[in-house]
Amino acid sequence: MADYRAPTQEQLFVLETVADLTELSTLPGFEDATLDMAGQILAESARLAEQGFAPLNGIGDREGARFADGKVTLPAGFAQVYQDYATAGWNGLSADPAAGGQGLPFVLSVAVQEQFTAANMAFALCPMLSLSAIEALQAHGDDAMKALYLPKLVSGEWTGTMLLTEPQAGSDVGALRTSATPAGDGTYRLKGQKIFITWGEHDLAENIVHFILARLPDAPAGSKGISLFLAPKFLPDADGNPGVRNDARCIAIEHKMGIHASPTCTMAFGETGDCLGWLVGEPNGGLAAMFTMMNHARVNVGNQGVAIAERASQDALAYARERVQFGPIIGHPDVRRMLMTMRSLTQAARAIVYANAAAVDRAHKESDPERRAYWKRRADLLTPISKAWATDAGIEVTSLAIQVHGGAGFIEETGVARHYRDARIAAIYEGTNGIQAMDLAGRKLRLDNGAAMRELETTIARDVAGWTDAEMQGAMTAALDQLARAREAMLAHDQVGLGAAATPFLALCGGVIGGWLFGRQADRAARKLVANEGDPALLQDKQAVASFFVTQRLPVALAQIAAIRAPSDQLEIPD
Amino acid sequence: MADYRAPTQEQLFVLETVADLTELSTLPGFEDATLDMAGQILAESARLAEQGFAPLNGIGDREGARFADGKVTLPAGFAQVYQDYATAGWNGLSADPAAGGQGLPFVLSVAVQEQFTAANMAFALCPMLSLSAIEALQAHGDDAMKALYLPKLVSGEWTGTMLLTEPQAGSDVGALRTSATPAGDGTYRLKGQKIFITWGEHDLAENIVHFILARLPDAPAGSKGISLFLAPKFLPDADGNPGVRNDARCIAIEHKMGIHASPTCTMAFGETGDCLGWLVGEPNGGLAAMFTMMNHARVNVGNQGVAIAERASQDALAYARERVQFGPIIGHPDVRRMLMTMRSLTQAARAIVYANAAAVDRAHKESDPERRAYWKRRADLLTPISKAWATDAGIEVTSLAIQVHGGAGFIEETGVARHYRDARIAAIYEGTNGIQAMDLAGRKLRLDNGAAMRELETTIARDVAGWTDAEMQGAMTAALDQLARAREAMLAHDQVGLGAAATPFLALCGGVIGGWLFGRQADRAARKLVANEGDPALLQDKQAVASFFVTQRLPVALAQIAAIRAPSDQLEIPD
Repeated sequence: MADYRAPTQEQLFVLETVADLTELSTLPGFEDATLDMAGQILAESARLAEQGFAPLNGIGDREGARFADGKVTLPAGFAQVYQDYATAGWNGLSADPAAGGQGLPFVLSVAVQEQFTAANMAFALCPMLSLSAIEALQAHGDDAMKALYLPKLVSGEWTGTMLLTEPQAGSDVGALRTSATPAGDGTYRLKGQKIFITWGEHDLAENIVHFILARLPDAPAGSKGISLFLAPKFLPDADGNPGVRNDARCIAIEHKMGIHASPTCTMAFGETGDCLGWLVGEPNGGLAAMFTMMNHARVNVGNQGVAIAERASQDALAYARERVQFGPIIGHPDVRRMLMTMRSLTQAARAIVYANAAAVDRAHKESDPERRAYWKRRADLLTPISKAWATDAGIEVTSLAIQVHGGAGFIEETGVARHYRDARIAAIYEGTNGIQAMDLAGRKLRLDNGAAMRELETTIARDVAGWTDAEMQGAMTAALDQLARAREAMLAHDQVGLGAAATPFLALCGGVIGGWLFGRQADRAARKLVANEGDPALLQDKQAVASFFVTQRLPVALAQIAAIRAPSDQLEIPD
Repeated sequence: MADYRAPTQEQLFVLETVADLTELSTLPGFEDATLDMAGQILAESARLAEQGFAPLNGIGDREGARFADGKVTLPAGFAQVYQDYATAGWNGLSADPAAGGQGLPFVLSVAVQEQFTAANMAFALCPMLSLSAIEALQAHGDDAMKALYLPKLVSGEWTGTMLLTEPQAGSDVGALRTSATPAGDGTYRLKGQKIFITWGEHDLAENIVHFILARLPDAPAGSKGISLFLAPKFLPDADGNPGVRNDARCIAIEHKMGIHASPTCTMAFGETGDCLGWLVGEPNGGLAAMFTMMNHARVNVGNQGVAIAERASQDALAYARERVQFGPIIGHPDVRRMLMTMRSLTQAARAIVYANAAAVDRAHKESDPERRAYWKRRADLLTPISKAWATDAGIEVTSLAIQVHGGAGFIEETGVARHYRDARIAAIYEGTNGIQAMDLAGRKLRLDNGAAMRELETTIARDVAGWTDAEMQGAMTAALDQLARAREAMLAHDQVGLGAAATPFLALCGGVIGGWLFGRQADRAARKLVANEGDPALLQDKQAVASFFVTQRLPVALAQIAAIRAPSDQLEIPD
């Protein structure tokens, strides 16, 4: 397996041309977020990713997180690199400066996290979850709670977790049973078990802050009766340092196909009746709080798809250059096809995720409320696409990486099989990709009869009209037409029909948006080449990858129209 | 994970409607191969698959084959089930009656092996390799050699292996270096190392017969200078029983992502200078002999794709019926889409592989030499499609099986992750799927300017014309038109262009042939329903799956035309 090299120049190009970082840096609070600054940040994070996270990926996979006597232990080296990560301030990159954060755009945090994740997906999940916990606390915590916990989470001294799932409550979060009983003093006593809790227990930080969905005694049934609680592993003492051990304990970890260094914990709360918790936000307002966490988390999980695809592409490219069978195998057109497919899917996924993250930033920071609402619609629309399309791309790209390696790819020592095993989880957690497709088709698309999608189509059409490449323009104009037909077909479906067509619709949307963002990048590359700006090799390569995707991959996505239009009774399964 | 239940009724329906078993049984030597007999055979093999092979799948994956002191040990239970398999005569099902075989059609052997493979892919690989060894020996061995080895291989008392790969010689077999020096007494001394040797050493049978590609001293360079040799683990004594230990030893086994119970051996020959071997066939005729082994083996590997897809589909269906999230998840249209996709890919792959195997049978048994040549062209054309398309389907279906299981799918205990890990190898070994695509595009298609493909198109068109379902007819007529365009585009490509378009072309062919065979089955189902023959639920389900595939999946395959037509310079990768 090749060493990981952060694709900093490619990331910067996407930040510039897709995320419009220069425009973003005109928004209040983002003044520091120039391309120049982004370049410095990404060069710095690349060092920690390449030299800190990456070398631990193999041992993390082979040895994995270990559970014994209620404790979870990571292989040697993890704790030190986590300390390096926290000390350097990476955790607070996009957090509120009032809590010690740097207040930089979310999209920059996404670019930085892409590097850590590509270097070591299992490890980088730990800080990723803390970022979601920070979001939830910033949005829903009261001032005292924020004062106590936020700086520790932002600094990375403490980590955060999200606890939703129970054996009977997976996608159907409303079926959860963990209970929270008011103690009369403003605190609650939590009781229950949660499963699949990522980094729920570990030895990298001195404290862990659990954000738990549970039911109040008088809560209505279902998802309207869940509330969000905070329960730390150690209760902060008078100085805010870890004090008394709380009754929130890991009782087992899972044996998984991948991300072995990421402990997936079964957590028990209040087994001795003494798990203290505090309500976060409103009683029975847990679902809304959960979505705050989830929306960021979903973009971040989409970003995992980008990262693992990038890593696998690098490994495959390095192997194809070095392996000789009838000459270096990179000389064989079919191997080049695999590599181009990998690179184009990776870059398309990156563009979608970064565009999504930049829309999140604008939804927060634009000064005009209408603009904020506009960008929130865009961010909400893109989120399920980022999550599902990019993680599906991660699976396909890691599979191709194995294929490029041939027999060696199936041998664990080579290392690419690990990416394939790791990548698979991202299509499942944070809402399965089927749930994402339903979120897109059943909610985001249907709001105001397709308004957000039509706005996006308008944006794309305006962009396309300004391009200089007539071929790309023609292909994308036809694709836009197909997208509009798909939208109309979706809006004409009943509820069952929407569900039946949701996944093909998301695949089509991802293809068209990927094509658009490639066209946009290719257009900017062409202009830069004419103006003699930038690295011509990088710019020409971007044009080549864009052209491959639009010519060869987009038509396959557009062919999903048949499935989108098909009657839902084609999906009957006999009893 | 659900228990494996052999899909005997579905297999019989495909044998009847796709493999034309009734017509096949009119060929000389195949008189016993009636549908009735096939039903009895498949019911019997199902018992051993379900009760013998399947229960060992979990332990085989967890414990795996173990290597110590030159010996490979399988988990408890494997040796007994292998003995049951051999004793019952399954190994000789399609072998020459003169050597103790039953002389039944290859397609019946394929159906039986599908069951063993679905029950336990890693285990079933052992007899699968013996079958290829038997083929090679039957076709190329001299009479004395056949008399000595064939009955033992056919009975399964001894197993066979194929040894091609060396570290520098994978797809490029001609780069191999293992040497064979004539000893002057008709024997040879072999020297060299082979890697990735499946079941190269084990404790299930008393002897192992290695079929090894090596170079004679004066051999020309490259693939024209390789010869096939036989070297047993134990040299047969005067009574034909295992005697002196030969200098052919396993020196290591690989740590792989999947098929853990299938030992992947590094084999050393002649380390003490004393590995006796015998030439099989002509000097420097190894490549031809290898292709004899490979062609059967490729159909069998395609069949592994069918088998693992069937197994994963069953597991997902069982889970979807039992798992409750907002009601049983099988009620959700998106879950039903996944299940229908899985079932349709599995059934399409099965139809292609069985059609291929039946063509192999006819190529051997038709009495008219022109008919034999015709069916050989058909079998040769279908082989790379069976191998690549069906194994790609295996990967997609096992991935969907994980997705249907959600978080539980990623946990090893659930068992579906195993199928995903196991399935991945089938796209790699016996010639990577890229090699298959090149075999199709660069050899099979181009012979006589596309004659075999045009013959196939004629067969399909004639079939389609006789169908009663106008919608299916229309879809397949359009698909045939697209296939013809794809063929013309391929034949207009230069060598590089053929390589660049090979994989998309194979994907398109697989989709069209899958659609054709579905249409054919649906037509037969409709006729049977009218005639009140067979199980109406099974027949209606076949119509539904066929309709889903042709309406929703075929268009995606046809969209590959864009990649087929694209200029090969779209695949440029920068240095």
